[in-house]
Amino acid sequence: MLLSAVDFSHKLLKETVNKGDIVIDATVGNGSDTVLLATLVGAAGKVIGFDIQKQAIENTKQKLLLAGLTDQVTLLHQGHETLADVLADHADVGGAIFNLGYLHGADKTVTTQKDTTITAVSALLPKLRIGSYILLVVYSAHPGGMEEKKALLDYVSGLNQALFKVLHYGFINQINEPPILIAIEKKKAPYMK
Amino acid sequence: MLLSAVDFSHKLLKETVNKGDIVIDATVGNGSDTVLLATLVGAAGKVIGFDIQKQAIENTKQKLLLAGLTDQVTLLHQGHETLADVLADHADVGGAIFNLGYLHGADKTVTTQKDTTITAVSALLPKLRIGSYILLVVYSAHPGGMEEKKALLDYVSGLNQALFKVLHYGFINQINEPPILIAIEKKKAPYMK
Repeated sequence: MLLSAVDFSHKLLKETVNKGDIVIDATVGNGSDTVLLATLVGAAGKVIGFDIQKQAIENTKQKLLLAGLTDQVTLLHQGHETLADVLADHADVGGAIFNLGYLHGADKTVTTQKDTTITAVSALLPKLRIGSYILLVVYSAHPGGMEEKKALLDYVSGLNQALFKVLHYGFINQINEPPILIAIEKKKAPYMK
Repeated sequence: MLLSAVDFSHKLLKETVNKGDIVIDATVGNGSDTVLLATLVGAAGKVIGFDIQKQAIENTKQKLLLAGLTDQVTLLHQGHETLADVLADHADVGGAIFNLGYLHGADKTVTTQKDTTITAVSALLPKLRIGSYILLVVYSAHPGGMEEKKALLDYVSGLNQALFKVLHYGFINQINEPPILIAIEKKKAPYMK
């Protein structure tokens, strides 16, 4: 069966995130990705989670408490555009996931924005481990969603093909605009010009 | 690692094609998909392969002979738009693959065409088994390729979402226009309005 964009993103994380890794949940939302990442990195790893909404941070904290996964997670009540301030210069990131749109069950007018999203992705690219992924699950049915999607597609389409693979994975015959997945994989860099 | 469109198409075939199945290679080309399909369906199955180029049919025949897989393959030196004439009305097709573009190593001006491709896909849709795939590996860097790709994307985007899932899988930061994969999965039809 063809996996949904969300399920395919989880499959990619399971294939590449290892115990002990440092990973990023750029939009913790209701915490389901955070729980998955915390399980994958284990007690020796670290998930750094961002969200601009207090409610998202609280929901995620509760979910992690129930799952006994709080120790390996640092939740930051701030936007992911601050990633560069938070991550050490030589951080080796084993994966990152963004859920772009609004927080389900909360104020639909509070959404991710193209500029801050692109700032965060740009900050992550040099710190990503070779063979690892930045995954962008892009919802676009809300107001402004299409604009963010278009800006992101433009940005990632311009990434150097010698350094990154950029995959578009999405269903194209759905009336209700399901999310698409953009997966960025860091390639082994060429060592000579 | 993110699979290429071609490798992802092979993975999907391996997951869904069973021994004894009837499957279609709509463009046998140099025969590599034909060999894969013949292996997957086994001696009890049947691959029906189409190609308009004599050279493609000959190359594929040689490849099948070497692999000892000729018994389960019927090669037809004719276009895939004749599928409806060839397949029995109640045929139960376990999978189909199209490689759209020109035959590598042959005349680049002989290419697949949007109208015949769409005719073939339309003929296959009602005969596809639930859960199985029609896979379109779409090359577009040759003259006319972009036009065929656009026409196909328009056509498949209009397929009824209650009956089919249509996935677009492709790399979007490559200068040399690698092929994309369009995967059509037949869903279990609703039994009431």
